[in-house]
Amino acid sequence: IKIIRMDQAQIDKAGHKHFMAKEIAEQPVVLGDALRHHVESETLLPELDIDFNALERISMVACGTAYLACFTAKYWFEKLARLPVDVDVASEFRYREPPIPSKTVALFVSQSGETADTLAALRYCVGKAEKIVSVVNVAESSIARESDVALPIRAGVEIGVASTKAFTCQLTVLALMALKAGLARGTLTEDEVKKHLTDLRNLPGLMNAALGQESQIRAISAKLAEARDILFLGRGDMYPLALEGALKLKEISYIHAEGYASGELKHGPIALVDKHVPIIVMAPRDALFDKTVSNMQEVMARGGKVLLVSDAKGVEIAGEGIWNSIVLPEVPDLLAPILYALPAQLLAYHTAVAKGTDVDQPRNLAKSVTVE
Amino acid sequence: IKIIRMDQAQIDKAGHKHFMAKEIAEQPVVLGDALRHHVESETLLPELDIDFNALERISMVACGTAYLACFTAKYWFEKLARLPVDVDVASEFRYREPPIPSKTVALFVSQSGETADTLAALRYCVGKAEKIVSVVNVAESSIARESDVALPIRAGVEIGVASTKAFTCQLTVLALMALKAGLARGTLTEDEVKKHLTDLRNLPGLMNAALGQESQIRAISAKLAEARDILFLGRGDMYPLALEGALKLKEISYIHAEGYASGELKHGPIALVDKHVPIIVMAPRDALFDKTVSNMQEVMARGGKVLLVSDAKGVEIAGEGIWNSIVLPEVPDLLAPILYALPAQLLAYHTAVAKGTDVDQPRNLAKSVTVE
Repeated sequence: IKIIRMDQAQIDKAGHKHFMAKEIAEQPVVLGDALRHHVESETLLPELDIDFNALERISMVACGTAYLACFTAKYWFEKLARLPVDVDVASEFRYREPPIPSKTVALFVSQSGETADTLAALRYCVGKAEKIVSVVNVAESSIARESDVALPIRAGVEIGVASTKAFTCQLTVLALMALKAGLARGTLTEDEVKKHLTDLRNLPGLMNAALGQESQIRAISAKLAEARDILFLGRGDMYPLALEGALKLKEISYIHAEGYASGELKHGPIALVDKHVPIIVMAPRDALFDKTVSNMQEVMARGGKVLLVSDAKGVEIAGEGIWNSIVLPEVPDLLAPILYALPAQLLAYHTAVAKGTDVDQPRNLAKSVTVE
Repeated sequence: IKIIRMDQAQIDKAGHKHFMAKEIAEQPVVLGDALRHHVESETLLPELDIDFNALERISMVACGTAYLACFTAKYWFEKLARLPVDVDVASEFRYREPPIPSKTVALFVSQSGETADTLAALRYCVGKAEKIVSVVNVAESSIARESDVALPIRAGVEIGVASTKAFTCQLTVLALMALKAGLARGTLTEDEVKKHLTDLRNLPGLMNAALGQESQIRAISAKLAEARDILFLGRGDMYPLALEGALKLKEISYIHAEGYASGELKHGPIALVDKHVPIIVMAPRDALFDKTVSNMQEVMARGGKVLLVSDAKGVEIAGEGIWNSIVLPEVPDLLAPILYALPAQLLAYHTAVAKGTDVDQPRNLAKSVTVE
């Protein structure tokens, strides 16, 4: 009998082959925890004392996957709160010395809270922005300490270099923030916010259903592993998720995946499409579904083999001629990017496993980038 | 003897093998013409009656290469005029119904002036933005007609599907606009603007010198043609150009090229790097040169083969261990993205020729995208 100390047990793989698999599987639980932490008897993010109604803009800055969480949140803030958002890659933001207009809150997202470029961008904004807010996993990090308000994402320790549960927890905190902003600015009623909160509380259940597709996803991934190039497509708030799906695949399977806004494809990248290129289409049945399907059909007309990720009805409506599909439960619009992150993560994971790469420690990468 | 009618002669290849080659070669001439058209006895863009000093923001919308011209201009406006700029892909902008704050000018860039998504985005902004400005090549186009002010780029007819001279002429008009804004907002003195104008007038000469590197670029392209994946890196206002270089290669050579902000590489994409992946680094000797070189060295430490595009001194300083280089003349910071566009275009062109693809009519693409 070996005695395992608690702190070691906390970071073991809990029966999974890789930390990444464990962290993907944990998402329904940690997301529920994040919700309970940040919603106290219907009050959203009580720690966040921002007068959203007096704000004119949010400037969000991050790197890598955290940047794509910000990019998703831009859609939410602009739609739900009619509050314009700038999103910037930290290494670009810090050196172009952008003007920060008055009535702007600066927001920084980082799993580790130590990302060097993001920290430098934060320091640039001190004294210029109304308030410095951060969304971090490590509550005692430099970025948290140097912020006026630091919101924890409550994802628990993330060991896999490719971020998974931190991404969906970042999205959850940012979604709550967008709801809070919408309520304060009068663009959402209390009833609408309550409805969104109910939806959010149902999300862990939907995530479990999505995780239930794993064996199907594993089978598809075995074929994806043979591809040299993969495209991810999405529209609206699924566009940043298309970028994230591609980033995840690239990071751990070393396949050259690239994400595109569906509508941009015909302005150049569609030239890449032939029968060897799988195209993964993220298409929940939202207001843009028909447009996405139409872009998907353009791709199929040029021989592209499409993997459609949608709900059962979406696959029924648009499934003719596609190569393969992943069926997710129906989901309210706001939550689609969070739910659809799971099949994107599982596709990357199983494709990497099929290729035999080092999933938790991909070549050339570090978990926290604490140098420039 | 065959009699050629004038209108036909205007669109012939003038001794070049492809329209694209002719259009690349024409750039020093058309750019000079654009300058003469838009600068009248030191007055910049006399047609453009905007009170830049009363503005708080410019919202730029376009597709494909024109979008990347806007993205470059964002850096210029923010640096030279301290005027914040939003840049959006038209197919995303039109459906996310972004809030347009007061004191915002909306600006649309399109070679044909008929790009469907861009036109729809323009119509969304009518009645919301202070003024609708467009930058087009075809002066009688729908986008021009529906704008308050339409600025012609004077590139002449562009036949090659992959945009070249339209891109550098778009950049020229946008640079003039940034200078005009800087002067109006007091962030540039008259002397500084005069200096920039002198630099712009010298640009056709520098472009001719860059075109003089063609045989060297052709030799490098013969090797690039064997690559399956290519990365383009740039920082600051060279980041959009890295995206444009990748887009051009993708469009006509069908090689999966992708552009990245140099500082983002370590947040994921560097996992792609091995000895088979050429990495093209756009590195004029500007304030970010050392940072770019440091990112380049990270790539080389992981076996990546680097093609460095810089001036002679840049290649001398940073050239140790690189795979290959292209030497351009020294160029003032503002104009580097315009000048460096030429080697990017020539690399794409000669790589495509080496691969034997249909350069002027790449598969799956149309010159003007007049449907969604």
